[in-house]
Amino acid sequence: MNTLPDIKNDFAQWYQEVVYKAELADQSPVRGCIVIRPYGCALWEIIRDYVDKRLKETGHHNAMFPLFIPESFLKKEAEHVQGFAPELAVVTHAGGKELEEPYVVRPTSETIIHYMFARWLKSWRDLPIKINQWANVVRWEMRPRPFLRTTEFFWQEGHTAHETMQEADEEARMILNEYVKLAHDYLAIPVIAGRKTDKEKFPGADYTLTFEAVMQDGKALQMGTSHMISQSFARAFNMVFQDRNGQQAHPFLTSWAVTTRLIGAVVMTHGDQKGLVLPPKVAPFQIIIIPIYRAGHDQQELRAAVAKIKESLAAFRVFVDDGDHTTPGAKFYHWELKGAPLRLEIGPRDLAQGQVILADRIGSEKRQVALGSVAEVVGQTLDVIQKTMFERAQERLRSHWHKAEKLSDFGPRLDEHNGIYQTGWCGNPACEQELKKFKATTRCLIDEKTSAVCFYCTNASKGDVLVAKAY
Amino acid sequence: MNTLPDIKNDFAQWYQEVVYKAELADQSPVRGCIVIRPYGCALWEIIRDYVDKRLKETGHHNAMFPLFIPESFLKKEAEHVQGFAPELAVVTHAGGKELEEPYVVRPTSETIIHYMFARWLKSWRDLPIKINQWANVVRWEMRPRPFLRTTEFFWQEGHTAHETMQEADEEARMILNEYVKLAHDYLAIPVIAGRKTDKEKFPGADYTLTFEAVMQDGKALQMGTSHMISQSFARAFNMVFQDRNGQQAHPFLTSWAVTTRLIGAVVMTHGDQKGLVLPPKVAPFQIIIIPIYRAGHDQQELRAAVAKIKESLAAFRVFVDDGDHTTPGAKFYHWELKGAPLRLEIGPRDLAQGQVILADRIGSEKRQVALGSVAEVVGQTLDVIQKTMFERAQERLRSHWHKAEKLSDFGPRLDEHNGIYQTGWCGNPACEQELKKFKATTRCLIDEKTSAVCFYCTNASKGDVLVAKAY
Repeated sequence: MNTLPDIKNDFAQWYQEVVYKAELADQSPVRGCIVIRPYGCALWEIIRDYVDKRLKETGHHNAMFPLFIPESFLKKEAEHVQGFAPELAVVTHAGGKELEEPYVVRPTSETIIHYMFARWLKSWRDLPIKINQWANVVRWEMRPRPFLRTTEFFWQEGHTAHETMQEADEEARMILNEYVKLAHDYLAIPVIAGRKTDKEKFPGADYTLTFEAVMQDGKALQMGTSHMISQSFARAFNMVFQDRNGQQAHPFLTSWAVTTRLIGAVVMTHGDQKGLVLPPKVAPFQIIIIPIYRAGHDQQELRAAVAKIKESLAAFRVFVDDGDHTTPGAKFYHWELKGAPLRLEIGPRDLAQGQVILADRIGSEKRQVALGSVAEVVGQTLDVIQKTMFERAQERLRSHWHKAEKLSDFGPRLDEHNGIYQTGWCGNPACEQELKKFKATTRCLIDEKTSAVCFYCTNASKGDVLVAKAY
Repeated sequence: MNTLPDIKNDFAQWYQEVVYKAELADQSPVRGCIVIRPYGCALWEIIRDYVDKRLKETGHHNAMFPLFIPESFLKKEAEHVQGFAPELAVVTHAGGKELEEPYVVRPTSETIIHYMFARWLKSWRDLPIKINQWANVVRWEMRPRPFLRTTEFFWQEGHTAHETMQEADEEARMILNEYVKLAHDYLAIPVIAGRKTDKEKFPGADYTLTFEAVMQDGKALQMGTSHMISQSFARAFNMVFQDRNGQQAHPFLTSWAVTTRLIGAVVMTHGDQKGLVLPPKVAPFQIIIIPIYRAGHDQQELRAAVAKIKESLAAFRVFVDDGDHTTPGAKFYHWELKGAPLRLEIGPRDLAQGQVILADRIGSEKRQVALGSVAEVVGQTLDVIQKTMFERAQERLRSHWHKAEKLSDFGPRLDEHNGIYQTGWCGNPACEQELKKFKATTRCLIDEKTSAVCFYCTNASKGDVLVAKAY
């Protein structure tokens, strides 16, 4: 029996093992890269399909840009190259020759996409341009962790260009809002939305919006970001258009992304000692049906009943675990490890009584359900599970969210991994820098002001900031 | 007005320009790479979704493997590395350092996937393994052409492992069959299925199945391939399992792929002097509705009528071209260039008469359709267009398919780009090599025998082979 490391005392090891044992991913022979196995891939496809649908509904179009970026492109925006240079993978040889100009494997695609925008954009009538790309990107990772930090990862990256700053600002906020809905309604992960400090923002952006969650060990996880890039890249790439007054103008840009890291967030938010616990909306299989054959009973009859139940559950993602070389007990264990929200067990005696046994993954009592009402009960129960998972995570977020005045007080407590601290800040980067001593960072600025002074110096606070250790 | 180069006399130039002007793709600043624009991306997503669904229905699971492959992996299978070495892009530096072992950017993923299969496979109970990956791959191209040959391209690559040779053989054939159905039923492209000669097969495979089409200029296009890899890679990667008799055995492998090249095939098969002609099943927009506003008439009324028509067409992919800064004529031209199968025009007079004007992209007469029956007529007409396009392409394939005895006869005719030649072959690679003088290759071996002797030597033919110049 595979038992997982203690989730309370050894969360990091628990995380790593559950990811591999539940077959979401596997280690690969390529440094810092994982293989996303079918179960993890199915989970990602469900998230992707939802996000893709929402992006299309909000007027974005998918496109595909080259994997390679000429090295010189990255250098056009000074902050940008500085931010990414240490993480780049570089192709120096190709087609049997050394290249005249090396190509970097995209760490993000602003530069190449903005080059193309500059080519396409002529008049204000061409605006807005709202592009999304589903792609792999590469950032060399010194301390990889499956899904959370891998050298290659998968994401959607949105890139838009707008006539006015207000429109770009609205876009960046609208997308953040979509992301928060994704986290709340789909992933059942409560998040805090806010704005990054200048130190933590995207290299080259005016400002970066973020949504942050707190994992079971009290560490924060940045779930995704939406950047108001404004005109910096537009100037760097000479992106101009004729405005409504016939003048040449630079458009206002945004970019935003969520990545396969979301899978890690789901694992770390909901998992327990038995393994994954997947929210029904993203679970590759929402319901596992396990027929329990007994010697001396008609297998065919049971098989037919199971087929009929499955048919009645056509609206859900269902898997019948009908293999004959493992015991029902081993199957229960297996699907608990894999986090399937619901399990239906049915043996000859249940069938004779016209019922199935319903077990959920969030610890409710097993119960009997009449065959005729399985579909209805399953639908309701999945809704309850989704809701309960969100509420429990919300409860945990509350218990991890502290208010504090001074770093000297909460700094040492940051070391016990017990959550995020809301505090006041004067806005001075030098004070922010002090957090480094506790291996913590600002996660985001939020629209509240509960402290009168800065967490470090004696100056007045300009507003609240959240501070935590983070993944 | 953008006019396209003459499709009859300058097909290569026509192709290039129609791809860019219809906004399927654009040139990029990265050598040999294109940008796939939203219209091309939408077309690819429709193809992808269909293929993905069929692959899942036939028991395959998606997974994601690393983009990078350690250079040493490619060298494990001798034929394989020889086949791909000249086309590789190599990452030599990453994270600010020179790598100890360079990584190649995957030109195909057999080696890394087989390494993982070897890790996962223990018993015959683990078989079959049926994996598919949607990915970008890189093969350095000296003479790139959009979609047909690009340095980076997109594909699905299937990789399977089986207990017996027969099972692997059935898999390779089943997939070829699926590909042929995709070509016929979706892309409206008639194809010839056959087997590659040893010279043309996939490096490392036992044999390669292919499906080939003939473009309007008479050149052949390989549309995709399905490889019976057998045990060569299994041995190279030490992939063993305990068989039903408790013995260690190597599994039998297959791999198979279709790529974004299919988009090129659709363009080159169906396009005409006015631009693209897209089969309804893959057209991003099957129907374009163009309201024709006239001065002195109620715009609101017309707008409402158009909205109602659109609503009645919810089962189709519809775009209402309602922009007010181009004329209806320019819109007709634009959507002809983009190959939309059907166009509905409606002006105040049509509205008063309770009708719309229906125009198709395959040259039928315009006709009037009563408002109440638009949905029904549109559905039927799209079916007719799909069918007609396939039949026309089939007619063209027939006219391009010749039987011939001797290379001395048909060799010079190959130079006029007038199609494929079915001929006899003794099986000797030396005779096959003679085709090079005419810049032609064998496309595939087919299950017919219409010639008694080889096209080159005087030995008996072992069966028919198709010969053509190819993309």
